[in-house]
Amino acid sequence: MDDLASHIERNREAFVSELMELLRIPSVSADPDRKEDTARCARHVAGIFRRMGLEARIVETPGHPIVRADYSHPENKRTYLVYGHYDVQPPDPLDKWLEPPFEPWLDGEDVVARGASDDKGQFLAHILAAGTHLATRGRIPVNLIFLIEGEEEVSSDHLADYLEKEAPGLRADGAVVSDTSMWGPDTPALGLGLRGIAAAEIRLRGPARDLHSGGFGGAVANPAAELARVLASLHDEDRRVAVPGFYDQVREIPREEKELLSQVPFDEGEFLDSTGAPALWGERGYSTLERIWFRPTCEVNGIAGGYRGEGTKTIVPTCAGAKITMRLVPDQDPETVLELFEAHVKRTAPPSVEVEVIKQGGARPVSLSPDNPLVQAAAGAEERAFGKKPIFIRSGGSIPVVGELKRILGLDVLLMGFGLEDDRIHSPNEKFSLERFRKGILTSAYLWEELA
Amino acid sequence: MDDLASHIERNREAFVSELMELLRIPSVSADPDRKEDTARCARHVAGIFRRMGLEARIVETPGHPIVRADYSHPENKRTYLVYGHYDVQPPDPLDKWLEPPFEPWLDGEDVVARGASDDKGQFLAHILAAGTHLATRGRIPVNLIFLIEGEEEVSSDHLADYLEKEAPGLRADGAVVSDTSMWGPDTPALGLGLRGIAAAEIRLRGPARDLHSGGFGGAVANPAAELARVLASLHDEDRRVAVPGFYDQVREIPREEKELLSQVPFDEGEFLDSTGAPALWGERGYSTLERIWFRPTCEVNGIAGGYRGEGTKTIVPTCAGAKITMRLVPDQDPETVLELFEAHVKRTAPPSVEVEVIKQGGARPVSLSPDNPLVQAAAGAEERAFGKKPIFIRSGGSIPVVGELKRILGLDVLLMGFGLEDDRIHSPNEKFSLERFRKGILTSAYLWEELA
Repeated sequence: MDDLASHIERNREAFVSELMELLRIPSVSADPDRKEDTARCARHVAGIFRRMGLEARIVETPGHPIVRADYSHPENKRTYLVYGHYDVQPPDPLDKWLEPPFEPWLDGEDVVARGASDDKGQFLAHILAAGTHLATRGRIPVNLIFLIEGEEEVSSDHLADYLEKEAPGLRADGAVVSDTSMWGPDTPALGLGLRGIAAAEIRLRGPARDLHSGGFGGAVANPAAELARVLASLHDEDRRVAVPGFYDQVREIPREEKELLSQVPFDEGEFLDSTGAPALWGERGYSTLERIWFRPTCEVNGIAGGYRGEGTKTIVPTCAGAKITMRLVPDQDPETVLELFEAHVKRTAPPSVEVEVIKQGGARPVSLSPDNPLVQAAAGAEERAFGKKPIFIRSGGSIPVVGELKRILGLDVLLMGFGLEDDRIHSPNEKFSLERFRKGILTSAYLWEELA
Repeated sequence: MDDLASHIERNREAFVSELMELLRIPSVSADPDRKEDTARCARHVAGIFRRMGLEARIVETPGHPIVRADYSHPENKRTYLVYGHYDVQPPDPLDKWLEPPFEPWLDGEDVVARGASDDKGQFLAHILAAGTHLATRGRIPVNLIFLIEGEEEVSSDHLADYLEKEAPGLRADGAVVSDTSMWGPDTPALGLGLRGIAAAEIRLRGPARDLHSGGFGGAVANPAAELARVLASLHDEDRRVAVPGFYDQVREIPREEKELLSQVPFDEGEFLDSTGAPALWGERGYSTLERIWFRPTCEVNGIAGGYRGEGTKTIVPTCAGAKITMRLVPDQDPETVLELFEAHVKRTAPPSVEVEVIKQGGARPVSLSPDNPLVQAAAGAEERAFGKKPIFIRSGGSIPVVGELKRILGLDVLLMGFGLEDDRIHSPNEKFSLERFRKGILTSAYLWEELA
């Protein structure tokens, strides 16, 4: 056992106390009644940084403050940014908690409390790892910038402004975010990518009011039927997105990624069971994981128009609409995709209906190559800490903050999660394993060593 | 002026009093509190028949009674059935009436009250015409069977049973229904046809619950998108219905009908204005009136699925559905069409969704040739009464009763309406013109003469 590991082992109790104390603060960013608690949590986090030997300050925003901590040493060649968030989801429904959500308790090896896994336990591991370096060796081998925000659960409204304003002082060689999950309890994983997203709403208007389908049916366009034609035109028979130009910026899956994919212990039957759908289905020529991790989509999230009650109502409805989100992959850009989408919809709808496309913005996809030095260093750190090589995974979802770190600061962002899928984040009795908390601290400590 | 016309002229006041008295009875079939009033109205109508010299009886049903009156004379060669209904729509909203709905008043030449046009003023004209024959000539030149029901506004639930049970005693050479409108105040019209209808609901089910479109999107079928594909498959590019076999029973428009159509003073610009739609639109190769009167349709009355609230919700919805009604033309049959529809939908939906088609029945289309003797006689009667040849019209709507008279009794049904489109039926301040009431009596009197 090396000096870093021994220090963490010796401070087992102290580190758990640090976590418990942090979990006691109800920093619910969505709750106006918790505004002062949320500010208190920011001050508390700054205090942890200072106790560990880092400079920390509270950055006020029009919303909840950001905690920023910096470490630099004249001999260090590299700088890394660590992002986390100290705010938590509301704890409702309260009556489903076995103990109050802000009175953390131990359930075997798990600590149970709101925010345990999302994200207090995870970002705290990085702070304690920095402290471990300083306590054992008097120095961290890389420069660090910590940004721990207080508005992640309420859409990070003020973070982008700060990143833009402070960009020159936030130059770094990469970023690490620990706000996701491992593949399984014994399978560490590094997240190399997220899909982006672009959202839009389509509205078709026909007659000025619902018309009687006897007196008018057949002689005026039916907006619900025309909407169906527009939506059907979004995919071809192979369920490829049929919006012209949609794939122009899409990178094909590199051969080495296909090799890595084959190593992921993905159980397709289990996945199908988890959906309850009659069958899996998607773009021809790709496997399920490829479809989720590497291929863009165009999903109809909702449709509405005309009569939706019991029985029959013989109308030609006045209007119909659909909500659409597209998941994007490198190098698709939400704005370009939304322009293509709008042009296609307007071209497809007939002149007998008025068509409106409301573009609702989006987030960029992000991706790291497995060859990226940050990934290689993190893989080494995880292998040392867990005694097992991590697998490389991606996510079909979108974390806007990660896209912003890339877009505004140009940073490659590694997703190094220590949570588990069953940590009940956003649900009652959220938990985080103390075993993975300690391994997280150790991984972070090794990561800075590997990166130096 | 002949004897029939003079009798009607002499009894002007008496006939209006008869109408006013009938309108005073609040025979609202939908209102359980009006059950006794509705029964009283049936007895009152039977009384009018008897005063005019016809035998009448009340036929009890599990709902509201039917009033049946019969006239026969040994020398008459033909028998005709007259259908009407003495029940009325609820008068709500009451505060929009200028005077109480069951206290009829005169507004110039119009009588205003609930039921004035729909249908009390119209069926009463036929009873008074029968009375006019008996009073002036001691005999009606054709045998008559009157069926005046009390459940038309609540879907005529018990009429079909009666027709089926009494079919042998209801044999006739044709039927007349006066429950529709003229083309315009000075343009009498004979209705030669109605479209039929077939109704169905489509339900598609995919995943067992709404899935996150990041974690699952692209790997499972989206029921809303697949529904759109199914709905889009219902029409081809020319907006012809694309359900295989759908047109197999459809009669093409005969050349003589095209000729008659060209005589209808239809103003397409006015029609478009009345819809408020950006443009007219429909099956390629047909005019607007042809599309409404002679061509079948497949309309989406409503669609629903997934998220329909504000903003964005990134889901693959668990299910989606649509409500469909098809308007039918001769010789389409609702049951056959629904079978074809179901087979097409099930063939079109992919195996990755469960599909359910709920068939909701329908009504048959009806049509008379302009050469039909009933039509020719009615045209002659209208020309004599109005001093103007009627135009031949059709309706894109469906009146189930008419289809039942054809289906159960095999009767050709002529729609001879004396109402106007702006009579505000089903709305406050329903009206009926006394001028057209008198012309209606005269037309009916001449009709029996022409048919003899």
